[in-house]
Amino acid sequence: MSRFLTPHTAALPSTVPFTGPEALERRSGIPFRARLGANESLFGPSPKAIAAMQAAAGDAWMYGDPENHDLKQALARHHGVTPAHVAVGPGIDGLLGLICRLTLEAGTPVVTSLGAYPTFNFHVQGFGGNLTRVPYKGDHEDVAGLLDAARTTGARLMYLANPDNPMGSHHPAPVIEDFVANLPHDTLLILDEAYADLAPARTVPVIPADHPQVIRMRTFSKGYGLAGARVGYAITNPDLALAFDKVRDHFGMGRVSQAGALAALADQEWLADVQGRTIAARARLGEIATANGFRALPSATNFVTIDCGRDGDYARKVLAALGQAGVFIRMPGVAPLDRCIRISLGDDAALDILAEALPGALRAAG
Amino acid sequence: MSRFLTPHTAALPSTVPFTGPEALERRSGIPFRARLGANESLFGPSPKAIAAMQAAAGDAWMYGDPENHDLKQALARHHGVTPAHVAVGPGIDGLLGLICRLTLEAGTPVVTSLGAYPTFNFHVQGFGGNLTRVPYKGDHEDVAGLLDAARTTGARLMYLANPDNPMGSHHPAPVIEDFVANLPHDTLLILDEAYADLAPARTVPVIPADHPQVIRMRTFSKGYGLAGARVGYAITNPDLALAFDKVRDHFGMGRVSQAGALAALADQEWLADVQGRTIAARARLGEIATANGFRALPSATNFVTIDCGRDGDYARKVLAALGQAGVFIRMPGVAPLDRCIRISLGDDAALDILAEALPGALRAAG
Repeated sequence: MSRFLTPHTAALPSTVPFTGPEALERRSGIPFRARLGANESLFGPSPKAIAAMQAAAGDAWMYGDPENHDLKQALARHHGVTPAHVAVGPGIDGLLGLICRLTLEAGTPVVTSLGAYPTFNFHVQGFGGNLTRVPYKGDHEDVAGLLDAARTTGARLMYLANPDNPMGSHHPAPVIEDFVANLPHDTLLILDEAYADLAPARTVPVIPADHPQVIRMRTFSKGYGLAGARVGYAITNPDLALAFDKVRDHFGMGRVSQAGALAALADQEWLADVQGRTIAARARLGEIATANGFRALPSATNFVTIDCGRDGDYARKVLAALGQAGVFIRMPGVAPLDRCIRISLGDDAALDILAEALPGALRAAG
Repeated sequence: MSRFLTPHTAALPSTVPFTGPEALERRSGIPFRARLGANESLFGPSPKAIAAMQAAAGDAWMYGDPENHDLKQALARHHGVTPAHVAVGPGIDGLLGLICRLTLEAGTPVVTSLGAYPTFNFHVQGFGGNLTRVPYKGDHEDVAGLLDAARTTGARLMYLANPDNPMGSHHPAPVIEDFVANLPHDTLLILDEAYADLAPARTVPVIPADHPQVIRMRTFSKGYGLAGARVGYAITNPDLALAFDKVRDHFGMGRVSQAGALAALADQEWLADVQGRTIAARARLGEIATANGFRALPSATNFVTIDCGRDGDYARKVLAALGQAGVFIRMPGVAPLDRCIRISLGDDAALDILAEALPGALRAAG
């Protein structure tokens, strides 16, 4: 251990929130034929976004605009807010780290769901926050339980993903609107809407952009299919949006990524097409699950969570057997959610491979 | 001010270390004809790097490998170290933030030079460190003064750029090797070698990769011409390199950027060509300075610092007048360095514009 670390950082684990599929391939020596574990969009980004990135590659000698001006203007128009309500950052992952840095001190209480996004927990622990985890209620994040925990612990931050990851469930907009109306005064809600672009109608709540207690997180990684470009953004009141300037890496948003996101946002026709393919792929994945004796949970996201009907050990065996068969998937990390496996939507080619591999994997899992 | 900020972050300014040229253009309404302020490489990245990024753009639906495996392997081979000695991050800016986060607590003493890289200071202040700034000795960072300050303050971190920014000067390798040999036991040296790829022979010191007290920072933004891709790396002992995993944004290095950096590193012929053009452009910039009655300082970087021979007010007027003429440059921020302006090397077209604009700018500056 380097002697230059602070006591706090010295005590943090050097582990990763998620192991990448490339690392799994290197370890196993088995290349994945179907990459269905990271909730990436196998439908890809808009061809216009690809073209914009290709054109920008020749300009990559220039730093990207540190104010992300054009992208912020376009996002503000898209969401009906002002550019001062928008903060752009390197994916929701990066923005979650920054909001934790802005708000947390050693021991600050934070509330999330037990089994929700591990990268948020990684950042909370990284900045010394004190996490309380509220169990899911069935397959949904427990909004009443989260509010209770926020009140009881005096949470400064609370995390809720809607739609949810890893269960793929969602609360309709009125539930979230009610949740926001009942936030304790001293709690800031991080509403992770990574999957909002793919959610059913009436999932996205109406929240005034100036609300002092809500920060919404959005991304180009899911519906827009640009996970590898690292572009996320927050929508929040201008005070909090401006606070990111205190701590962000001002030149951190590269030129190629900004160009790709701008073009992706402009191509709403492509997004609509992806939304249509998403609905069809959810149905097909559900059929594959049913054909193998499993139950597919309803999905509001770009993945389907499948209840394998037994315990976590069994689901882990199914996951491992699919990996051996060249199919990369993931699964929830904690019980009782870990009775499930989580499979990202694929194009027909990827789902064909899954359909072909799953029966053998189930036999291997016993 | 949002009530959710910590007292420390609430007290931080919402200012930027550097204003981007795009923001300057938006404010003035005058587009820059020559972009010579940000020490970008007007010679551009290798065409092979551009091609690699263009090919990777279609794969941008996938997250980049969070282990940066292929790039780390290649960097390790290039530098004769092991991959465990390398940490990859979003530019040196991003890595400086991470090393500050790993090592600083409120009030931790840190030493740098008065007028050196503002983004380092931004991160030190952001994590509550207590900065001591040592004046330059002439046009060079004062290595003896830095060592004295580190000893006197008990600095945990010390920053030295070699070659230096903003003066463009350098210390020969033996000076740095001696500096490292005399580091106080409890001081970690950040050796920023952003410009090392363009420096004269015998600038880069020999330091054992396992040295417990040195972390070297390198980048693809300067010699390799990929500022807009955001790829930097640190070379240090494996303990400290591994510590970045405690706090880094694991999926933060995008797929397109990793592909571009890998291809750029592989094209050393392109880098050699850039090195040749760098030497020629330094000479031409020196001639332009002399022709206008100024003195160009010797440069070990991709910019030339020009002593305007008067005070900061005059240099600021020259800078402003060049901006009015459509030429973007920058200058050191503090006296006495601010008697100078700093002009990035350009291709012939950009230097032609500078040569044409400078006499008028000097008349305007009075």
